[in-house]
Amino acid sequence: MADANRLRILLVGASGTLGRAVAAELRPRHDIVTAGRTGADVTVDIADPASVVAALRQAGPIDAVACAAGHVNFRPLEAIAPAGLAESVYGLGLTDKLMGQVNLALAARETLRDGGSITLISGILSDEPIVAGSSASMVNGALEGFVRAAAIELPRGLRINIVSPTVLSESMPSYGPFFRGFAPVTAARAALGYSRSIEGKQTGQIYKIF
Amino acid sequence: MADANRLRILLVGASGTLGRAVAAELRPRHDIVTAGRTGADVTVDIADPASVVAALRQAGPIDAVACAAGHVNFRPLEAIAPAGLAESVYGLGLTDKLMGQVNLALAARETLRDGGSITLISGILSDEPIVAGSSASMVNGALEGFVRAAAIELPRGLRINIVSPTVLSESMPSYGPFFRGFAPVTAARAALGYSRSIEGKQTGQIYKIF
Repeated sequence: MADANRLRILLVGASGTLGRAVAAELRPRHDIVTAGRTGADVTVDIADPASVVAALRQAGPIDAVACAAGHVNFRPLEAIAPAGLAESVYGLGLTDKLMGQVNLALAARETLRDGGSITLISGILSDEPIVAGSSASMVNGALEGFVRAAAIELPRGLRINIVSPTVLSESMPSYGPFFRGFAPVTAARAALGYSRSIEGKQTGQIYKIF
Repeated sequence: MADANRLRILLVGASGTLGRAVAAELRPRHDIVTAGRTGADVTVDIADPASVVAALRQAGPIDAVACAAGHVNFRPLEAIAPAGLAESVYGLGLTDKLMGQVNLALAARETLRDGGSITLISGILSDEPIVAGSSASMVNGALEGFVRAAAIELPRGLRINIVSPTVLSESMPSYGPFFRGFAPVTAARAALGYSRSIEGKQTGQIYKIF
């Protein structure tokens, strides 16, 4: 007999530190379809809208899409000059982490089963800034605003939430100098935010893992 | 004798409903240099980075820059398709209200006198979504994240804050149907947020006028 609680979940960024932890948390109870730029069940570059649409079609019917991917530049503000979006230091974050995830949500809206969920990723920097982090603060704030708004307009009982972790313990060797005084969490702890979003019933939530 | 509390303030969007109220609040105590696309002391299109840089240079030494301008699209989520940033419904808000104000802040950083202030504009939709408002929610959230981050990195004692008003009473004839149940505030009330930012000493603040 089929398990009605067993979900088919498309996990974007499945090969990253956080993505692997999300897969480890969910795989015992659900079917995970991995997505990413290389070595995944479905190949996708979230910065390319056509790739996002194609990946959702390739994945077929799903109950949830979860994203653990997205790039931004880290640069001291003093090294950031006024510029058009394409040339700006902020362009990568706006194109990749922000619009990549927004397009993922918009495309998933068409292919998710009724009542399905979308889970995106922001991060602590929208709440707590660090030096060189203005692009991440901007993009994370944008994503949280988008999720709150999209939640009230999605059709067919679809839900959308976002996970905002602090710095990951596994990332401290490289990010530690930027996050002095921040208490890191393990990727496994951050992955629980995805579980709450996918396996709960709430929408428009920001799951802060810090 | 010169009044040490008298500031020279560049006001972008000075001819709009909110801009006129900001000017009315501040003009009795300060020198206002108006900026906008037409009919202002300084001509500027914030969506054009070169225009922003040129406007700041033309304005000369200032103690404060305040922005009451910025465009976004309002569109039901169901009518928004995945798209690249240039083609997206979200492109206008990201280029104009978001990056226009970010570039204004970055350019003003070079020309503001020591201890000067930057005051940007977001809006209630980052906190409280409405139907068709996902672009505004995204952009306002991005701006608030940027302001919190930029505040800790600006040089020379420069400050940056953002005013987040609810819908203006004066805008209810056109915006009322989108904001049912929201208690509007007058533009004069919203203008007090600019006064707090410019005439106070705080930085990294979101002055919510709702």
